[in-house]
Amino acid sequence: MSKQSFAIIGSGALGGLYGAILAKAGHEVHFLVRSDFEHVRRDGWKVESHWGDFDLPQANAHDRPATMPECDVTIVALKTVNNASLKELLPTPTGENGLVLVLQNGLGVEADSAEVVGEDRVFGGCCFLCSNKVGPGHIRHLDYGRIVFGPVAKSNESLQRAGRIAGEMEKAGIEVQVSEDLTTLRWRKLMWNIPFNGLSVALDASTDQLIANSVTVELIRDIITEVHTAGTACGATIGAEWIEKTIDHTRTMVPYDSSMRLDFLARRPMELDAILRKPIEAAREVGVSMPKTQMLYQQLSFLQERNAEQASSW
Amino acid sequence: MSKQSFAIIGSGALGGLYGAILAKAGHEVHFLVRSDFEHVRRDGWKVESHWGDFDLPQANAHDRPATMPECDVTIVALKTVNNASLKELLPTPTGENGLVLVLQNGLGVEADSAEVVGEDRVFGGCCFLCSNKVGPGHIRHLDYGRIVFGPVAKSNESLQRAGRIAGEMEKAGIEVQVSEDLTTLRWRKLMWNIPFNGLSVALDASTDQLIANSVTVELIRDIITEVHTAGTACGATIGAEWIEKTIDHTRTMVPYDSSMRLDFLARRPMELDAILRKPIEAAREVGVSMPKTQMLYQQLSFLQERNAEQASSW
Repeated sequence: MSKQSFAIIGSGALGGLYGAILAKAGHEVHFLVRSDFEHVRRDGWKVESHWGDFDLPQANAHDRPATMPECDVTIVALKTVNNASLKELLPTPTGENGLVLVLQNGLGVEADSAEVVGEDRVFGGCCFLCSNKVGPGHIRHLDYGRIVFGPVAKSNESLQRAGRIAGEMEKAGIEVQVSEDLTTLRWRKLMWNIPFNGLSVALDASTDQLIANSVTVELIRDIITEVHTAGTACGATIGAEWIEKTIDHTRTMVPYDSSMRLDFLARRPMELDAILRKPIEAAREVGVSMPKTQMLYQQLSFLQERNAEQASSW
Repeated sequence: MSKQSFAIIGSGALGGLYGAILAKAGHEVHFLVRSDFEHVRRDGWKVESHWGDFDLPQANAHDRPATMPECDVTIVALKTVNNASLKELLPTPTGENGLVLVLQNGLGVEADSAEVVGEDRVFGGCCFLCSNKVGPGHIRHLDYGRIVFGPVAKSNESLQRAGRIAGEMEKAGIEVQVSEDLTTLRWRKLMWNIPFNGLSVALDASTDQLIANSVTVELIRDIITEVHTAGTACGATIGAEWIEKTIDHTRTMVPYDSSMRLDFLARRPMELDAILRKPIEAAREVGVSMPKTQMLYQQLSFLQERNAEQASSW
């Protein structure tokens, strides 16, 4: 059985990192690259990683899907705010038989890919990863890195397929795990993303500043508890000890600017819909209110609007 | 009956304004002035007011209580964060018989004055006022201006005393009203102060920016509703229509930087205790939670701490 080939849709801090690791291990990898296409096509990738630094001088870079061949696995690593473009980006690299692995933050984010290629071929996953793109073709992977993913439509066949993808990733040196319970997985990641992404923007603070202050830790705990309660009501199975564990893990994390804060500072749209609005909606549908999470969403919506106005008036 | 004499403890945008209006009307007024003492002693007050501009070239300025004579009425117009100093500031101008009118924002703020002179002589009031000190001895009174106050310990005698003070203020040109229900009065003011003071700092926005955006109006309404519910549980009698009225009144207010935002921008301590912590505590004691108000308090506490650190490292 030959090694699986991969298409990377969205070659940022996440897609670029995993794609480069897979390519280094000998997989055929095709990167759809936006802003740094010329750079990656010419010089490939430079990866600083706590798993080991390396250069990938030659990379298959594409600036549009039309030039991409059909691949066994297409990894969707775009920001969810760009999911409307999946209609154009997914069909060519995925073809008739390719599988799609959606590595995006938030709730219900696989639906946009499933609409294009059908639910049976779609897998959803979370990355527990601190990684930033620090320059064109240049990735700095600071901490963590584990991928946990599972099929959207559970069946023996889809679990086998997930197992094969995970096996190849693992051999390439990626920490990876298959989960049969995407709901639990998504909500557990939200227990980090909602408070830390959200408050880092609302309070203009890095995660280590938030975790160093007893009042913000109290607020973080309140919000994580809301997310835990909402997730449980939506069918997730997460032990209550994960409330404190999520805080404790962040204490030992390297100082890190959350992806949402980086987006905000760069005046890019934030993933408010996937990370905040959809979980609040899902909770409301099962009769659970999330007042502090909702307030965070309201504040971030205001900040985003103002950010966009300022960007356009410059 | 001769005109009442007044001592003004804290001659800022509020104390300076009302004191100057009373002095212009012929009352003997003694101002305790901190930062602009020299200026006020030499040049008096310059008042720009939507009730009419005027200059008060001669004012009795004091830089310490020791030089102040006993007055009929002492107006406490300090920020509540300085209430610890009332022990030193109140006794001399108040003497054995003087009355104390506490014109401070927040809940339970009369207690600090009552501790010094006894509850029977203390009146509490709210000012519905947009006024800023724009320079030394220079006040800009932008909008509103009504004072509503009442006795802390209700009795026929204290109501008569309140009536006399109100009568003299009114003759001087101040909009004033006596209320027998301090609880209702305090909570109604909090319905404005908590959302607008709080969010103007948390979101770094002026009141007109907050009121122009539908998402922040939604958040403002959520918070006002929490305050209304809490106040009602604490014994205030406020019709539910005041939730929308409070928003609507702010729509027609001139663009205004709330006092809390001005304090924050000037790196002065904010009145978090009186305006946020005490109402949250009072509500909790009667079994009512205020999650969004509490989140606002948590966020502001963090911002205040950071502000203080930055101030001291400059």
